[in-house]
Amino acid sequence: MAILSDLGTEILVPACAIVGIVFSVVQWILVSRVKLSPERHSLSNSSKNGTAEYLIEEEEGLNDHSVVHKCAEIQNAISEGATSFLYTEYQYVGIFMVAFAILIFVFLGSVEGFSTKSQPCSYNKGEMCKPALANAIFSTISFLLGGLTSLLSGFLGMKIATYANARTTLEARKGVGKAFITAFRSGAVMGFLLAANGLLVLYIAINLFKIYYGDDWEGLFEAITGYGLGGSSIALFGRVGGGIYTKAADVGADLVGKVERGIPEDDPRNPAVIADNVGDNVGDIAGMGADLFGSYAESSCAALVVSSISSFGINHDMTAMFYPLIISSIGILVCLITTLFATDFFEIKAVKEIEPALKKQLIISTILMTAGIAFVSWIALPSSFTIFNFGSQKVVKNWQLFLCVGAGLWAGLIIGFVTEYYTSNTYSPVQDVADSCRTGAATNVIFGLALGYKSVIIPIFAIAVSIFVSFSFAAMYGIAVAALGMLSTIATGLAIDAYGPISDNAGGIAEMAGMSHRIRERTDALDAAGNTTAAIGKGFAIGSAALVSLALFGAFVSRAAISTVDVLTPKVFIGLLVGAMLPYWFSAMTMKSVGSAALKMVEEVRRQFNTIPGLMEGTAKPDYATCVKISTDASIKEMIPPGALVMLTPLIVGTLLGVETLAGVLAGSLVSGVQIAISASNTGGAWDNAKKYIEVGI
Amino acid sequence: MAILSDLGTEILVPACAIVGIVFSVVQWILVSRVKLSPERHSLSNSSKNGTAEYLIEEEEGLNDHSVVHKCAEIQNAISEGATSFLYTEYQYVGIFMVAFAILIFVFLGSVEGFSTKSQPCSYNKGEMCKPALANAIFSTISFLLGGLTSLLSGFLGMKIATYANARTTLEARKGVGKAFITAFRSGAVMGFLLAANGLLVLYIAINLFKIYYGDDWEGLFEAITGYGLGGSSIALFGRVGGGIYTKAADVGADLVGKVERGIPEDDPRNPAVIADNVGDNVGDIAGMGADLFGSYAESSCAALVVSSISSFGINHDMTAMFYPLIISSIGILVCLITTLFATDFFEIKAVKEIEPALKKQLIISTILMTAGIAFVSWIALPSSFTIFNFGSQKVVKNWQLFLCVGAGLWAGLIIGFVTEYYTSNTYSPVQDVADSCRTGAATNVIFGLALGYKSVIIPIFAIAVSIFVSFSFAAMYGIAVAALGMLSTIATGLAIDAYGPISDNAGGIAEMAGMSHRIRERTDALDAAGNTTAAIGKGFAIGSAALVSLALFGAFVSRAAISTVDVLTPKVFIGLLVGAMLPYWFSAMTMKSVGSAALKMVEEVRRQFNTIPGLMEGTAKPDYATCVKISTDASIKEMIPPGALVMLTPLIVGTLLGVETLAGVLAGSLVSGVQIAISASNTGGAWDNAKKYIEVGI
Repeated sequence: MAILSDLGTEILVPACAIVGIVFSVVQWILVSRVKLSPERHSLSNSSKNGTAEYLIEEEEGLNDHSVVHKCAEIQNAISEGATSFLYTEYQYVGIFMVAFAILIFVFLGSVEGFSTKSQPCSYNKGEMCKPALANAIFSTISFLLGGLTSLLSGFLGMKIATYANARTTLEARKGVGKAFITAFRSGAVMGFLLAANGLLVLYIAINLFKIYYGDDWEGLFEAITGYGLGGSSIALFGRVGGGIYTKAADVGADLVGKVERGIPEDDPRNPAVIADNVGDNVGDIAGMGADLFGSYAESSCAALVVSSISSFGINHDMTAMFYPLIISSIGILVCLITTLFATDFFEIKAVKEIEPALKKQLIISTILMTAGIAFVSWIALPSSFTIFNFGSQKVVKNWQLFLCVGAGLWAGLIIGFVTEYYTSNTYSPVQDVADSCRTGAATNVIFGLALGYKSVIIPIFAIAVSIFVSFSFAAMYGIAVAALGMLSTIATGLAIDAYGPISDNAGGIAEMAGMSHRIRERTDALDAAGNTTAAIGKGFAIGSAALVSLALFGAFVSRAAISTVDVLTPKVFIGLLVGAMLPYWFSAMTMKSVGSAALKMVEEVRRQFNTIPGLMEGTAKPDYATCVKISTDASIKEMIPPGALVMLTPLIVGTLLGVETLAGVLAGSLVSGVQIAISASNTGGAWDNAKKYIEVGI
Repeated sequence: MAILSDLGTEILVPACAIVGIVFSVVQWILVSRVKLSPERHSLSNSSKNGTAEYLIEEEEGLNDHSVVHKCAEIQNAISEGATSFLYTEYQYVGIFMVAFAILIFVFLGSVEGFSTKSQPCSYNKGEMCKPALANAIFSTISFLLGGLTSLLSGFLGMKIATYANARTTLEARKGVGKAFITAFRSGAVMGFLLAANGLLVLYIAINLFKIYYGDDWEGLFEAITGYGLGGSSIALFGRVGGGIYTKAADVGADLVGKVERGIPEDDPRNPAVIADNVGDNVGDIAGMGADLFGSYAESSCAALVVSSISSFGINHDMTAMFYPLIISSIGILVCLITTLFATDFFEIKAVKEIEPALKKQLIISTILMTAGIAFVSWIALPSSFTIFNFGSQKVVKNWQLFLCVGAGLWAGLIIGFVTEYYTSNTYSPVQDVADSCRTGAATNVIFGLALGYKSVIIPIFAIAVSIFVSFSFAAMYGIAVAALGMLSTIATGLAIDAYGPISDNAGGIAEMAGMSHRIRERTDALDAAGNTTAAIGKGFAIGSAALVSLALFGAFVSRAAISTVDVLTPKVFIGLLVGAMLPYWFSAMTMKSVGSAALKMVEEVRRQFNTIPGLMEGTAKPDYATCVKISTDASIKEMIPPGALVMLTPLIVGTLLGVETLAGVLAGSLVSGVQIAISASNTGGAWDNAKKYIEVGI
């Protein structure tokens, strides 16, 4: 048995989750110390630390009162836009979730004709398990819980981001370090809230369900998988809806404002500027949060369900059973310490220190987490145990599981570094892309796409190695915990990821409030680092999604009682081929949606420039709300077809062509999708930073 | 036994091949009737048909003598550039082929220590087969034969194309119909030469090898597979080298000429204009020819080698054994009739008739060929036989084989139609892309990429269905003959494909020779249809390559004695993942190569515009040769790394990670590569025609 007692586990997991929540509240309070009302701000100006704070604005003789007031006003507009979009989105998603919950209930409940009698277990033959109806009820509940937790985390993340953006702008007047800390702390609020909430809700749900299920762990953890499904359903719509929103607004705003009218990015005269800033929050914060939450919940559930039919579950070894949750708990502590390195132990004084500081976050969290995993694997696992492996049981040692989780963790770091190399403007790839613009848009497109394609190579090798290690050692359980390893530093990952859009917004607010160009320079430097970290966040999301999908694929295959998925059979091969096509279909849909929404945005922005007198001169205010509405409507409408494609494909393929073809489709779309995802994400990040590189250079 | 006797087969196959060669010579003679010397031209002007031919040039009072002279001069420059590039390319490829031939010889010969003693057969147990050394010698010979045939076909195709381009321009003065016929006939020369040569050389090689091998068909047809490998080796370098050449020149010429200097496409003042036109011939003619030849040779060989260990080979049923060759023979006859529909039975009178005429070619050839396949399957096959299927023998009926070949053929037609829909400017997709340019390059890029992604859907379903049908009926033999079915109308496919670059060149020559804009309009119309047909040609090439690759994959798996390629093993899964990445790596390399070569070209063109006095005014001549040299050098240098990636990956993966992982890599790169290929090809075709659509509209 494990060194850590069951009681220890029962204390450790919720304690870490609560520490995470407390820490994020503390960060929120620290951010809130930056006052958005000018009076109080002047007070605090000379109070806190010995060295009187020195504001650029004052030096330049601008009216501090009006600037702060303006920032607060803009922040308000962004926050309102984002909140209203999320409410609209959540209404639609809510309807979908309820419908889907009913479907799950009916589907699972009808297996045994809604009977309330106990049934023989599927895996642990000879024992009796709870009836299918109970499974249906609890799966539905955990599905809704997963969805709600995801919504809540995304929503709170958006709230803190739109609370912090203007504060970051104001802090930028005191120096780049202050602004960085404000933005980063706000990111941390999101990161810790999400990681801790996800863990706590899951933990509580398991313990509550246990009251009913008792010793029937097979049924208990099968019902818990609904939590992951709920999380990833929200992720799908959050990502797609938010993504269409942010890109349509971004493209629309820049095309007319920057390209046609020659006004700067985020100029307040641009009617789409608020929509653009709202987009960063709903897409890159709420959407990204939902995405990572989905992966996190799915990988935890996948690991739990496999371990419930492995020796952990069969022997009712609770500590070992909770190994995935303990990893996440320790992850919260590790990330907490890591965060202090960015906000307290060191201080950023110059622009060029930003990227290294963020990079250090990745390195420190990974190194500390490696020790953490080793420790957890030592105290929480028996030295030898068996893991369910497609029908049989496979003997696994505790150090092997350490290697599985570690492989995922370090693959994440490698993906992070490679992404940074390909999307940061301090290295040659982005500089080459920038350079290629000398000969026009065409060479820029060629170089940008080629960069994205090339950036796929090392991450794929990293993912392949971690799959090989974890798959070989512990089959699908290994894959699931490898995904958890990659996501164990999720709080830090989300902090540096959310930091990006906050800085981006801060720059936008500085521009809109008409602040000094020196402040804009500082926020631009923060933002350039943010583009890179956003790409790193996407890299993590993609890498972990790949691992999680594989784990879920394994779960599907086990459940469907398929023992081999042989490429040499026509059924499987055409599945692979069609599966590899699906990401293209999906991407075509979302890109077309962005394109048409952007076109509508462009027309509206042009209309306003042409019909509102005095808009270009800055004497009249544009109609921001119409642009916000265009993005909102387009993204809500357009998120349905791609969502339907993802939801219906397994149903249709499975029903018409059988489970072998479906297995092929899933494998095909997994191996093809991860390539498109990495290349598109890095091409985008590189183009964004190449633009910044050129703007700074000129 | 089959209805067709062995003697009948021995006559039918070479007879059809010779008919094909004679037909292409006749077409060549018909094209050569258009004289490039003004004196003779004036003579023929009033001779042939009753209605006196009416030249736009005469109406406009231009000097006919100087125009014809100029056309001949430009054609000469293009032809010289193309010839010199191909010679250079062939030198490098020649060195590679010799080295590879030695490698094949040593590798195959060393299997039994270069022993000259007979060995027990691998499949037909109990019988004795020829020694491995003989296998090594004959494989090497057939490898070199395949390579040489491919080189010859590509080279002759390029020659006729550069012979026909100026003639097409001159004919355009008489009307669009005349110009169309000249361009199409020249394409037909290429198509028929390639199809007939490929068939004839293969047929002769088999018959010569048989003198030595006698009844050892297993050894004979295994040695013959070298033919396919030779063909596809040339295809790799021809496609990559030619592709880099043509795109570098194209991008370079347009970026400075059209975008920076505002001079028309193909303006003679542009120093890169000759390189651009050379590129069309070496890339889209010679490269495309080599590509399709490679697929054709590989699928024939794959079918033959499988059938040698099936009942056909075991029973020494020669007619059934030659089924793949008979299909190709009938294909030549069908294409011959089809060609007459374009050149003789109907006459094109207006611009809008061009695309329907080309489309009709596809439909007519497919319908006729369906009857042809049915006929061949009836006369050449026993009603029931067995096909080798991964270690066992599978019973197959002749009508099932008809369905296999037919599935490939009709999948080709569907791919052709879908490609046409997505790349022709008469349909909404291209018009939408053109429309998106109103809002700038960014929306254009989004719409173009989305179009390409979307265009993948139907072709993949078409390929999947044909794989499913042929795989289910006749295992890997089915796949190979399905590929042959798609390629059975290769002569027509290549004719309409080669027609594109010829028309493109014709337009270029018209511009450079300073001919009337009305001629340019006609050639532009030809060219727009040509862009579509080029995309259709690429679609066929991709579709057939996918089927052929699968057939070769099956051959590899059989030979490596792998009975299952199970996705649920870590070895295979990481192979799939890494394999799906390889096309991205490959594309990154070639795109980067095009990008850097284009940058060099741009610099050179700019340098010439800046340093040669009177160039913009048209009083000084640019230095075309330097631009040709830049494209040549870049493409020769840059084709090596992608070539090495393709060649070395199987060796490295197979050696280090074993055959299961290699099987995964091959399957992964197949299913992922076909998607990138279709989407990139259609995005490119659509952009090209969107450009034409906009130019015509303005």
